[in-house]
Amino acid sequence: MNRPLINVVKMGGAILEDEAQRILALSAFASLLGSNVLVHGGGKLATELAKKLGVPVTIIEGRRVTDASMLEIVSWVYAATNKQVVAQLKAKGCKAIGLCGADAGIITAKRRTGWKVDYGFVGDIEGADGATIFSLLEKDFSPVFAPLTDDGNGTLLNTNADTIAATVAQALLPFASVRLVYTFALPGVMEDPDDPATIIHHLTPNLYQQYKSSGIISEGMIPKLDNAFTSLSSGVTEVVICQSGEIGNLGKEGFVGTSITY
Amino acid sequence: MNRPLINVVKMGGAILEDEAQRILALSAFASLLGSNVLVHGGGKLATELAKKLGVPVTIIEGRRVTDASMLEIVSWVYAATNKQVVAQLKAKGCKAIGLCGADAGIITAKRRTGWKVDYGFVGDIEGADGATIFSLLEKDFSPVFAPLTDDGNGTLLNTNADTIAATVAQALLPFASVRLVYTFALPGVMEDPDDPATIIHHLTPNLYQQYKSSGIISEGMIPKLDNAFTSLSSGVTEVVICQSGEIGNLGKEGFVGTSITY
Repeated sequence: MNRPLINVVKMGGAILEDEAQRILALSAFASLLGSNVLVHGGGKLATELAKKLGVPVTIIEGRRVTDASMLEIVSWVYAATNKQVVAQLKAKGCKAIGLCGADAGIITAKRRTGWKVDYGFVGDIEGADGATIFSLLEKDFSPVFAPLTDDGNGTLLNTNADTIAATVAQALLPFASVRLVYTFALPGVMEDPDDPATIIHHLTPNLYQQYKSSGIISEGMIPKLDNAFTSLSSGVTEVVICQSGEIGNLGKEGFVGTSITY
Repeated sequence: MNRPLINVVKMGGAILEDEAQRILALSAFASLLGSNVLVHGGGKLATELAKKLGVPVTIIEGRRVTDASMLEIVSWVYAATNKQVVAQLKAKGCKAIGLCGADAGIITAKRRTGWKVDYGFVGDIEGADGATIFSLLEKDFSPVFAPLTDDGNGTLLNTNADTIAATVAQALLPFASVRLVYTFALPGVMEDPDDPATIIHHLTPNLYQQYKSSGIISEGMIPKLDNAFTSLSSGVTEVVICQSGEIGNLGKEGFVGTSITY
């Protein structure tokens, strides 16, 4: 029996905040056949809104602290972005259904504790209910996740979208093969970020070690790629890094991006 | 064969903005057995936020004009309120799933046109997909609707929550009996709004005519009650007007509220 293939696509918030990029990215997602999940990030609008409202934006060691006022703002922006994405996908014929981790109890999370710094209302994910996500996909719905979860006690939590995507991908493995797709500003992993011709079309653990030891893969890509290999080790079939406009070409000849497999 | 009974409960936004009332109301909703849908209104937070951000609030003939800036604010607040309600219901053991009209294409709407005044991004509902709502209820999910729909072309629309509740109730009739519940500041329809002992426990078309012609039912209640009778004429089994804290007692002895039937 052929297992179905599910694409779990993570899109950054910045893409969705730029109208031209958003239209291109959502058109590409809507054109993708089969069963697809979208996870979107937050973007900068929440920070801009906080500034307008005089809510202090606190960054410690490069991470934003989500205090109660910031949580309110983040919830506004991320939840509304989610519904706007759903409306725009619907206009393109995609039966999207906008969710956060709390909806239908799909994602279990808890407030981050035990870190040196208290980052406030930030969620660490414990797991996801793949059966419920799969049952939505079986009805031809495309779940669209906002980067929000809840603590089980009624409070929303600001949550990393990459982690949501990886968790959802893993939770779907009992039901399907899963391709996990991270959209990226560049066409893929590059030998030279300034030269599109140097895209690395295919990475395996061996090739990755070679590129790393020769210093070709840049420092900034390493955490992203380490996460990709962690997902592969959990059973995800393929991790792809590509530009959002390429999503519609996934699995087709001529697709441009980096495919990461064992 | 017994048809299942579905409760479609409309709660005003003001209830959800007051913490004590919200806890009481959502606890009551979560304690209600069987299949239940919640529809919530908008409340005043969007107007307050608009003032803080210097966005003009325009009211014409008692109705708010939703221009592009106001639509953005309304989308933030209503979509986030929806997710907060979902998280709080989840904490009380209710598998809520937060939706707007655009999600899963459940509600079809169009932008209001042909009125004397252009109210901006306001939705008039054309219909709802009862089969999809019923399929969520069959999975023991409780759909929670925000007062937002879309125009089919990717734009969200500010939409009256009472109308969403009535439309959803009607759309569910091929699958179940439906009780449509409007929560209210008073215990129900009153002969004397200052005296709880004068609650009218049961209204029928004949009784309504008598109360109206004797001037006992106040001017302000008449549109609400006319809508209730319109719902009954479309096949809704019962319309109930009660306080939000009473919702858990629906169908039980000692329930306090006004039941409206043919």
